[in-house]
Amino acid sequence: MKVIVIGATGTIGKEVVKLLASHRHEVIAASRHSGVQVDLQDIASIRALFKAHPHCDAVVCCAGEAAFRPFADLGEADYELGLRSKLMGQVSLARVAAEELNDGGSITLTAGILAREPMLGSASVSLINAGLEGFTRAAALEMARGLRINVVSPPWVRETLLAYGMDLSGGQPAAEVARAYVAAVEGQSQGAVLDPRQLP
Amino acid sequence: MKVIVIGATGTIGKEVVKLLASHRHEVIAASRHSGVQVDLQDIASIRALFKAHPHCDAVVCCAGEAAFRPFADLGEADYELGLRSKLMGQVSLARVAAEELNDGGSITLTAGILAREPMLGSASVSLINAGLEGFTRAAALEMARGLRINVVSPPWVRETLLAYGMDLSGGQPAAEVARAYVAAVEGQSQGAVLDPRQLP
Repeated sequence: MKVIVIGATGTIGKEVVKLLASHRHEVIAASRHSGVQVDLQDIASIRALFKAHPHCDAVVCCAGEAAFRPFADLGEADYELGLRSKLMGQVSLARVAAEELNDGGSITLTAGILAREPMLGSASVSLINAGLEGFTRAAALEMARGLRINVVSPPWVRETLLAYGMDLSGGQPAAEVARAYVAAVEGQSQGAVLDPRQLP
Repeated sequence: MKVIVIGATGTIGKEVVKLLASHRHEVIAASRHSGVQVDLQDIASIRALFKAHPHCDAVVCCAGEAAFRPFADLGEADYELGLRSKLMGQVSLARVAAEELNDGGSITLTAGILAREPMLGSASVSLINAGLEGFTRAAALEMARGLRINVVSPPWVRETLLAYGMDLSGGQPAAEVARAYVAAVEGQSQGAVLDPRQLP
């Protein structure tokens, strides 16, 4: 398959690219600042990406920011970051991909387990992640042309915890998390929220 | 208790006001265009409401719009309506209420079962409702001063289905839905997603 990966230089994205390539898929590695460039916050930029790389079978998104800070400190700009970047960036991607992908293709987005397993500081992130899960479940009912849409909700990634000097318990290596994305691309899931901790 | 109800003239809000009053609570009935006026999309308007009605014990929100239309027709403006009105309007309310309510007070928001039970046309509404559920679960972990926050996720309301000439199966009378809001105000729930169909 010909697969676009957005956020291809990130901790998870790198592993998704590696795993897809090892499964002999053709990967278009896109990100905000390097390789094939795309800005999720600009729908014209997303459209340009698909025009430059037509006839793709799948798009995987491992990109998008949201603000993690105490509820009492979360201001307008913090919420807006998540809404513009991780939430509506991926919704815009789904809207464009639903038009541009080949028949039978798939869209795989990224939320996160904070959607259902919140922690101190996650009010905005939990909102964004849960919103993406709700969106995916609903949009799946209306996919045309045999398209599929799913969302991976990863736990904390071990490499991220390590980089921040945090407790590693509960962290999952990015290479394992990547398996959930590849399962979504290669499998038959529709409207699923995939938890990489529960892969067989 | 002294309780602010926002959306007090709506189908559900009217019943919440009636039920709270019958339980001898003092109700401040607010809405966008009549009675005590407030615009959820303007945080200054929310702040003014609490300044004009200080020392409240609870706020209940039954207000907020979102666009229900086919996924293929949902445009930028449709998503923005839900984000500005139902989603961030209620998040802004929670932020202000967390500062202004009396110690031990409660915040009760409205999502909807489309968060977890999507249907054709609900991509934007499901996103908004699920986002509100995720936000509430997380914000609850950081409520100070004994405050509580919960969200009611109502099914289709019978009166609404009737007004639109839709199938009434699955619809619940607004007076029954209102019981979930009053349970949230009078009970001890924290971070709960209340489904009015599952009340005892």
